[in-house]
Amino acid sequence: MRAAIFRGPQDIEVGERPDPVIREPTDAIVRVVLACVCGSDLWYYRGESPHAAGSIGHEFIGVVEQVGADVSTVSPGDLVVAPFIFSDMSCPHCQHGSTISCKLGGSFGDGTIDGGQGEAVRVPLAGSTLVRVPGSGHSDQTLRSLLTLSDVMATGHHAAVSAGVRPGDVVGVVGDGAVGLSAVLAACRLGAERVIALSRHPDRQAVAKAFGATDIVAARGDEATEAVMKLTGGIGADASLECVGTPQAIATAFAIARPGSTVGMVGVPHGDVPTAQTFFRNVGWRGGPAPARIYIPELLGDVLSGAINPGLVLDYETDLDHVADAYAAMDQRRAIKSLIRIGSL
Amino acid sequence: MRAAIFRGPQDIEVGERPDPVIREPTDAIVRVVLACVCGSDLWYYRGESPHAAGSIGHEFIGVVEQVGADVSTVSPGDLVVAPFIFSDMSCPHCQHGSTISCKLGGSFGDGTIDGGQGEAVRVPLAGSTLVRVPGSGHSDQTLRSLLTLSDVMATGHHAAVSAGVRPGDVVGVVGDGAVGLSAVLAACRLGAERVIALSRHPDRQAVAKAFGATDIVAARGDEATEAVMKLTGGIGADASLECVGTPQAIATAFAIARPGSTVGMVGVPHGDVPTAQTFFRNVGWRGGPAPARIYIPELLGDVLSGAINPGLVLDYETDLDHVADAYAAMDQRRAIKSLIRIGSL
Repeated sequence: MRAAIFRGPQDIEVGERPDPVIREPTDAIVRVVLACVCGSDLWYYRGESPHAAGSIGHEFIGVVEQVGADVSTVSPGDLVVAPFIFSDMSCPHCQHGSTISCKLGGSFGDGTIDGGQGEAVRVPLAGSTLVRVPGSGHSDQTLRSLLTLSDVMATGHHAAVSAGVRPGDVVGVVGDGAVGLSAVLAACRLGAERVIALSRHPDRQAVAKAFGATDIVAARGDEATEAVMKLTGGIGADASLECVGTPQAIATAFAIARPGSTVGMVGVPHGDVPTAQTFFRNVGWRGGPAPARIYIPELLGDVLSGAINPGLVLDYETDLDHVADAYAAMDQRRAIKSLIRIGSL
Repeated sequence: MRAAIFRGPQDIEVGERPDPVIREPTDAIVRVVLACVCGSDLWYYRGESPHAAGSIGHEFIGVVEQVGADVSTVSPGDLVVAPFIFSDMSCPHCQHGSTISCKLGGSFGDGTIDGGQGEAVRVPLAGSTLVRVPGSGHSDQTLRSLLTLSDVMATGHHAAVSAGVRPGDVVGVVGDGAVGLSAVLAACRLGAERVIALSRHPDRQAVAKAFGATDIVAARGDEATEAVMKLTGGIGADASLECVGTPQAIATAFAIARPGSTVGMVGVPHGDVPTAQTFFRNVGWRGGPAPARIYIPELLGDVLSGAINPGLVLDYETDLDHVADAYAAMDQRRAIKSLIRIGSL
């Protein structure tokens, strides 16, 4: 089969990989329909973090082609969403909702295991990992939104859930990448009354507003903090969502959080939270990689009903032949997030 | 009046301070009955943190002697518990439950404002700060337990609440000082099924068991982590309570927390939480100085009913004349926590 192959920083090409076959009775083979590029894919693309040469991509939806003998929850022909981590859903960590720490789990596109950016994927633990999409004849808009549930929308939702967003809350969102925008949507979906998006880019501000942001703060750093404090009468946000991970973004996310609140952190931290300072304000934090598998079912319902349209973050698209363009567009910030059309339904 | 006076490290004596008088219509004058020494009082006693010369002590119960014109919730003759911070309970931070950040609040015994370790205290914002104890003829055991609500038991409770302890949980408690022991009691009170207390001292282990600890781990550091992991089948605790604040204690508290759980932090951190490592396990933390005023009413009911007896942490007692002994006993670890008898009911 054809698949995107990582050769090294800035060097991604389409090449051949072995056609996936069922190896374990818990496997399924999924023919990929849509995939996309994650912000975290840019780390190895830019040479900022290591990645084995080989398969890449961990966000995809597709159609089940074949299932192992022990797979009963999905069948050939089913449209499915794959969370970015496969998990058994029965180990103690999965039972506690932490599928990221599944004792048998792993991630797609790590160089060896098939990645989502290819024609097909062998999905381990398929029965507990894949989520079947009910119905048929879904629109392209719906498919794009379903694709976001595999990671980015689930991650935005994780930020909001981790911060404990409740109806009526004032929420501050640091970061206007695809995750930050998804966090805006997630906060609105959970009933936030006011969502303040920190964004300097008009195209991203537009998506934030489409997702329900009530206020836009275009400043950064101390100026952004001052602006949010002014908007909140000097109190700060009831929930602050950190969707970047840089030291400045972390500092801002904690500075705009009101005393006693929780920062939802989903940007991979490239700096430390100032522990003592945070402690004395009773500001805590929760977060990490999202347990997408846990969240997909509830988000799926809202996508299918049209209540949410997270696919709006995908503002660039190409096909597998041009997968390198998908990366370059995001790297050069020409795209919020790149869609790769691979197969048909 | 007579009161404990801080002169400098290791130098505490009983001296004269002006009799407190009503200055604001929101003040009350409280005659102190019982006071105690906080673990945080040892910081300035040992010269580890600065403290202005003068009044000390922030934990006390007493009898109201006089109230300002605007104080209607307590009256002369009332037995009251004073939380360690006074607060107006109406500013946005108080309304959100974060009395520590009250815009008009402050702490007792800061060198100038009367401390609890003296014969009387002018309590600012008395109507919203003091909690009246119903009934009369309370036993000495009850009075000792009521005293702990002003700080230490409220702080242990804050650890458990911050970590989200729920019925059936497995809870690990790092620290066997008075706060850690109170956290054991708080976790049991909230329905934890199993409470693992990390304690190396037989006298403290005994109190932990009296409070409901089901398991004692006498090791420290990596050995303690291994022991807790073994006790929990390799999973870790559903909630981990950090009640010390040293880098080793922080590291242990996070290491024993299962993925997806929250560490309740009430030990003042003298080290940073390892952010990235914690993030990838989805372990978060919440905590800080306890909003004691918020917790006192519910804890008070359980003290009066005899459901909890947090006063057990007070294992040394003396009078105001010997307040220096109260500090020395804790400093030399001869006492878990020192009680100072000052007045009668």
